[in-house]
Amino acid sequence: MRAALAQGDGVHGATSPNPPVGCAVLDADGQLVGLGGTQVAGGPHAEVVALAAAGEKARGGTAVVTLEPCSHHGRTPPCTEALVAAGVARVVYAVADPNPQAAGGASRLAGAGVEVRGGLLAEEAERGALRAWLHWQRTGRPHVTWKYAATLDGRVAAADGTSRWISSPESRAEVHRLRTRIDAIVVGRGTVLADDPALTARDAEGRPLRRQPLRVVVGTGELPSGAKVLDGSAPTAHLRTRDPRAVLADLAGRGVVDVLLEGGPTLAGAFACAGLIDRVLAYIAPSLLGEGAVALGASGVSTITGAHRMVVEQVTMSGPDVRVSAVAVRD
Amino acid sequence: MRAALAQGDGVHGATSPNPPVGCAVLDADGQLVGLGGTQVAGGPHAEVVALAAAGEKARGGTAVVTLEPCSHHGRTPPCTEALVAAGVARVVYAVADPNPQAAGGASRLAGAGVEVRGGLLAEEAERGALRAWLHWQRTGRPHVTWKYAATLDGRVAAADGTSRWISSPESRAEVHRLRTRIDAIVVGRGTVLADDPALTARDAEGRPLRRQPLRVVVGTGELPSGAKVLDGSAPTAHLRTRDPRAVLADLAGRGVVDVLLEGGPTLAGAFACAGLIDRVLAYIAPSLLGEGAVALGASGVSTITGAHRMVVEQVTMSGPDVRVSAVAVRD
Ligand SMILES: NC(=O)c1ccc[n+]([C@@H]2O[C@H](COP(=O)([O-])OP(=O)(O)OC[C@H]3O[C@@H](n4cnc5c(N)ncnc54)[C@H](OP(=O)(O)O)[C@@H]3O)[C@@H](O)[C@H]2O)c1
Ligand SMILES: NC(=O)c1ccc[n+]([C@@H]2O[C@H](COP(=O)([O-])OP(=O)(O)OC[C@H]3O[C@@H](n4cnc5c(N)ncnc54)[C@H](OP(=O)(O)O)[C@@H]3O)[C@@H](O)[C@H]2O)c1
Repeated sequence: MRAALAQGDGVHGATSPNPPVGCAVLDADGQLVGLGGTQVAGGPHAEVVALAAAGEKARGGTAVVTLEPCSHHGRTPPCTEALVAAGVARVVYAVADPNPQAAGGASRLAGAGVEVRGGLLAEEAERGALRAWLHWQRTGRPHVTWKYAATLDGRVAAADGTSRWISSPESRAEVHRLRTRIDAIVVGRGTVLADDPALTARDAEGRPLRRQPLRVVVGTGELPSGAKVLDGSAPTAHLRTRDPRAVLADLAGRGVVDVLLEGGPTLAGAFACAGLIDRVLAYIAPSLLGEGAVALGASGVSTITGAHRMVVEQVTMSGPDVRVSAVAVRD
Repeated sequence: MRAALAQGDGVHGATSPNPPVGCAVLDADGQLVGLGGTQVAGGPHAEVVALAAAGEKARGGTAVVTLEPCSHHGRTPPCTEALVAAGVARVVYAVADPNPQAAGGASRLAGAGVEVRGGLLAEEAERGALRAWLHWQRTGRPHVTWKYAATLDGRVAAADGTSRWISSPESRAEVHRLRTRIDAIVVGRGTVLADDPALTARDAEGRPLRRQPLRVVVGTGELPSGAKVLDGSAPTAHLRTRDPRAVLADLAGRGVVDVLLEGGPTLAGAFACAGLIDRVLAYIAPSLLGEGAVALGASGVSTITGAHRMVVEQVTMSGPDVRVSAVAVRD
């Protein structure tokens, strides 16, 4: 399953609106004979890729998949058929498919005489590459990770408006890699006016990485014609609204499943107010400012008891910075 | 040395202005025969306590001490004399004594034919119970730990001014235990007006813990006569100044070595501005407010490059909260 999860991670960001699934095929003796991840939408699913790699060795073997194999004809034939045709004896998967159209894969396989087991490392799989897709299946909305870089005292910009560079080179490099795994980066018009960010995924030398997400600017006003987001180096959408729900509805229509909200405070506050922040990814730099914009602007909360509650999922160091990943608690 | 460090931890908070030193005595065969921590000022030092416990078994043995044994006559005779008189063959210590009056203990011992080794677990000892005392010896100022409880977005109070309870019961209990190990809790008058805190060290049932630090309120205005800090349950000082240096000078005069600055933002900003925050202890609750007071008020910084820089020393979980300990970087 770890090998299958790694395959899913490897295609994370390249499959939307299909899920980034990973698959490992073992032969009858338990030897690894095929690996695969889901290809870009319309391309083959992970199981098909891994079965193709395994060839005849799959017969009598085991397919280990991060998501319950689909049983419906979408843009590709059902994976259950491919697994049965390959003569696989056992299928082990992590997470059940919440998509009512695709679900039923497990029982379809069992009906064809395949031994099926679900739930292996399910929690790890849910938190990994599949997280946004599962959220989208369950809620109908793209998954929103609000990412910000702040000082220990919560400032995302200094009094003079500068915000680069609050976080360390290590944290910035990590964010650029993260950008290649999500579908869209969203910022408010204020951030474009203040920082003129390119919102592309780049390496340490500033060269564009392999995959670029959709750049999205939210705000009713005009963008400066020379803004870097309009430089054509990656697709950009300017959504002339102030309604976070409208933003997500528009993005869902574009096949966006995984959103990275990169601020600023006003837009992040509007998302929090609407209950649309699913996860927070905070890079906290060990410095103190005492003035300047605070990470989150007004979000409709006036008392401690009314705070938007989260649960810390992971705390790690990112160079000198503390990186906190927390997920929303919904009552 | 671990046993000696634990002894030092055990008396942390009870010894100022003497250092909270720990000592372990091993006999000639390396068996632990005595343990001790420094007693309240004027009382015996750690070495003397541990030697008394060891008795004759100390002869030919080893004394392990967290701090280089003192060689001067203060309120008690020098520890070097006691060690030599006990017939100890070897002395191992962690940190050299920076106090010019007391230093020279190592060479005094060596001159008396005792084998001496310094530096064992020195870093751990410097970060532990001895931290504040070493800082005070080196700078002449009490050591200041700024402690606060904030949301992920850096708020220490909600828009309605309420600040209880931002952090978890686990974090609050930890802070109460911390209060028993420091010499003084300092807050601004604004915090007294807003929250009317008792500033005592209490257990989960609200009962006072064994040791109570001095309560200090800083501000030029009057305190409400019914304020809990004036309830007589622990000593309180009202310092009618707005100058952080004057605050520390006054406290040093009272034998205060280890200060816990508990806010609020205005006073913390003034301490940061004066370069007087030595360590930050942040309890970060996984919730979002979007409004309300920010942890740190104006601290004389207007650009990112001018930020007060720190280094993260430790990140742990405190119940659901993230606890970050960071120390100031001074150029
Ligand atoms: N450190 C970090 O992680 C980070 C990240 C981003 C930004 N920043 C800093 O944040 C500051 C910019 O803050 P900001 O709050 O102005 O940026 P912002 O939230 O990116 O943009 C605010 C703009 O978003 C539009 N908007 C969208 N939805 C809205 C709503 N519901 N209510 C109100 N306006 C809405 C409005 O544009 P229209 O007027 O066009 O409608 C508004 O002016 C800069 O200093 C920047 O450096 C820091
Ligand atoms: N979550 C937490 O960890 C935490 C901790 C503490 C407070 N809080 C919250 O913080 C808020 C209170 O904030 P605050 O900033 O008013 O509190 P504060 O910093 O405790 O008190 C401000 C007062 O301190 C005095 N002061 C001392 N030095 C000063 C200086 N250099 N400059 C200006 N004033 C100085 C002034 O009193 P005079 O006018 O008498 O001179 C001033 O009014 C409350 O909402 C409270 O709940 C939260």
